[in-house]
Amino acid sequence: MSELVKATAISGFPEWLPNMRLVEEQFIDTIRRQYQLYGFTPIETAAVERLEVLLAKGEMQRQIYTVGKPEEGAERDDDKNALGLHFDLTVPLARYVAQHSEKLMFPFRRYQIQKVWRGERAQRGRYREFYQCDIDIVGRTSLDLIHDAEMPCVINSVFSKLPVPEFRVRVSNRRILSGLIEGSGLAPSQYESVLRAVDKSQHAGLEKTEAELVKEQVDASVIPAILELIQAKTMDAARQIFAKANAPVAGLDELDQVLENAVALGMPEHRLEVDFSIARGLDYYTGTIYETFIEGYEQMGSVCSGGRYDDLTSFFTKQKFPGVGVSIGLSRLLAVALEAGTVTADKHTPTQVLVTAQDRQRFLKEYLGFAKLLREAGIPTEVYHESKGLGQQFGYAATAGVRFAVIAGEQEIADKTVAVKDLSDRSQETIPRSELAGYLLAKLQA
Amino acid sequence: MSELVKATAISGFPEWLPNMRLVEEQFIDTIRRQYQLYGFTPIETAAVERLEVLLAKGEMQRQIYTVGKPEEGAERDDDKNALGLHFDLTVPLARYVAQHSEKLMFPFRRYQIQKVWRGERAQRGRYREFYQCDIDIVGRTSLDLIHDAEMPCVINSVFSKLPVPEFRVRVSNRRILSGLIEGSGLAPSQYESVLRAVDKSQHAGLEKTEAELVKEQVDASVIPAILELIQAKTMDAARQIFAKANAPVAGLDELDQVLENAVALGMPEHRLEVDFSIARGLDYYTGTIYETFIEGYEQMGSVCSGGRYDDLTSFFTKQKFPGVGVSIGLSRLLAVALEAGTVTADKHTPTQVLVTAQDRQRFLKEYLGFAKLLREAGIPTEVYHESKGLGQQFGYAATAGVRFAVIAGEQEIADKTVAVKDLSDRSQETIPRSELAGYLLAKLQA
Repeated sequence: MSELVKATAISGFPEWLPNMRLVEEQFIDTIRRQYQLYGFTPIETAAVERLEVLLAKGEMQRQIYTVGKPEEGAERDDDKNALGLHFDLTVPLARYVAQHSEKLMFPFRRYQIQKVWRGERAQRGRYREFYQCDIDIVGRTSLDLIHDAEMPCVINSVFSKLPVPEFRVRVSNRRILSGLIEGSGLAPSQYESVLRAVDKSQHAGLEKTEAELVKEQVDASVIPAILELIQAKTMDAARQIFAKANAPVAGLDELDQVLENAVALGMPEHRLEVDFSIARGLDYYTGTIYETFIEGYEQMGSVCSGGRYDDLTSFFTKQKFPGVGVSIGLSRLLAVALEAGTVTADKHTPTQVLVTAQDRQRFLKEYLGFAKLLREAGIPTEVYHESKGLGQQFGYAATAGVRFAVIAGEQEIADKTVAVKDLSDRSQETIPRSELAGYLLAKLQA
Repeated sequence: MSELVKATAISGFPEWLPNMRLVEEQFIDTIRRQYQLYGFTPIETAAVERLEVLLAKGEMQRQIYTVGKPEEGAERDDDKNALGLHFDLTVPLARYVAQHSEKLMFPFRRYQIQKVWRGERAQRGRYREFYQCDIDIVGRTSLDLIHDAEMPCVINSVFSKLPVPEFRVRVSNRRILSGLIEGSGLAPSQYESVLRAVDKSQHAGLEKTEAELVKEQVDASVIPAILELIQAKTMDAARQIFAKANAPVAGLDELDQVLENAVALGMPEHRLEVDFSIARGLDYYTGTIYETFIEGYEQMGSVCSGGRYDDLTSFFTKQKFPGVGVSIGLSRLLAVALEAGTVTADKHTPTQVLVTAQDRQRFLKEYLGFAKLLREAGIPTEVYHESKGLGQQFGYAATAGVRFAVIAGEQEIADKTVAVKDLSDRSQETIPRSELAGYLLAKLQA
């Protein structure tokens, strides 16, 4: 045999042990179920896109991983066919909608839960491969503002069902800030500088933000209003600032409507917060914007963000597809839940019952029969097949996080009974074999 | 705006519309649920592995897609850090077990459902990106033969729950053929030629197989026994061939035991078939081997294959990890189910109830309230927000595959009632609003 290949991790590509993967699967199932409750339909796109698709928006900052084939290189080497791994699920959605628009029903409500890849420098909480869980509602030509109100409700439904601490959805609207600077003679190109400065204001503080706005040559007459707005905590406060500045209030009116309808749709008011200091500077949103923070873990950043965009597919088609959507950063969310201790990864298997083998030589068929019975009743079951004593078999079950052990020796087999040990409290009962499945189902559902 | 980027498919990277993705998700959920019932625990590995890991077995025939980063290329360009996309889930499992063996519980029963990538020439039913759904049981040092008996049972449980036609699991054991040629002075290197010839025998027919064996310089004294064995349909027939050839029967004994225990574990005998003509020539199996065929679609090939291997991790560690496993080729299986018509992809959304908007202007809040109510009861619900008449709203629901429409106009709102239309039979009932969720839950569960 030749030299051994070292089996080591690749930096930035995290891999869970089974106990954490079980938690991750549970998160994904919950998210998916809630997305479905709101009528979102699943799509999955290829991990690989043509590079010209990925680069359509000029997103080189996402550090795209290219994909190449060593063998057939020559035949596919031209730029048109160069491939890369997708770095988010929004560009693939745009390409998908443009490509399949004639076969989709609009408004197109889709969810998409997939890994994405970014060649960023790996650091704590920042991965090169990670899960995103997206929903978007895409209209053909137009999309009613009511859909903006659905987003906080879906976020609320998802996060209420997940084992995470209390959370808040912060909402604003890009049009508010643009309304404020509109009359001030600011060039459109400066708008982005303002957005960036506002985006950073929560970390930077007011003084630095003011300095930033001055440096970006924002009109001196607008700066006080911007700084006031960033600090405003209510719609009323914002309206007063706008009245003073004599600025157009279309953005505030939109936000009002979104808030009102979100509450009608079931969004609890205490989890919905206007926050004029969020701006989502680098993204291409045009209206409502969202960020979600876990209370006590605000410094870890938003765990679910998104917004309204006027035209999803402008790089692919001249038809207009406006949309609104949010994306849950599952990896970051899991990190928060772990740090907060709201998830305990103490199960290493989905198995709920271990059929122990007291006398495998004589009774193997019976043990296999118990497993068959329990699986038919829908109970995840394992049979112990190592040559170990009963004590070690219980130990295996306890370590793996399996709650029940089924035991049958000579006596039980003769009596057509089984003993069931509950490892959570070490209690044990002997019951007729015919009642085994029903007994365990009742225990597990209690 | 600059030139538009064309949104087109990449050959070999299939992408479903929502109706098919709904079916695919349903298949995956069923497979996963059955895997869990047998105590398999989930893992997911990074899509990307180091090239030296992927090439450890010299599997260049799998046409590996390489992964590179245009920006930081220089720093990672050395061979040790070159990356590629995984082409199956077995090599990643081997690397995972070798890397994490100290933290895993053995026997390690894992399932893994992920996409894999192969740079093969695209053709009908052969994709470059596709799903595999694997289970393996990996022992440390040793693994009891009983685990070989579990595989057909899991396959049976999975396929019984899936909307696919009747199926059969064919089983053999690599040791049978090697027992037959062992005493015949055949060189070990010739064993692979025999395996390949046997593998092709079902398509090639007996005459061509004989010619092939002659061409491969298989000992003339063994060829008649091999040809007889390929045609044998029972264990008895095989034992007679072995008695005549005076060959060792260890392989037959193992197979006998696997068959017997599989039946004890619940495998229906009529779906379990010995088939000495399967050999799985290219894979590294050392004992039991499995192939699964859908009745009437045998020509589409095996939809679930696998086997026992003596040592999973020999390329990564000197510790011994024997294992047994099977892999469902989900994409091929879906293709068979579609061709057989056992799946009908007639739903475009998980939504089960559409809340129609008869008078959106006045009653939007009520409509949103209905949706809230139904979602809280766990019923996937959508509210219609386009400005269209009721007839078009029913049409939307019918096309999307949504069964129920909830209707409320002035009269219903005043009476605190709602009308519910069942689009499957066009029937309609008016009920008190307070009974809406219960009424629909009962209808949906009926």
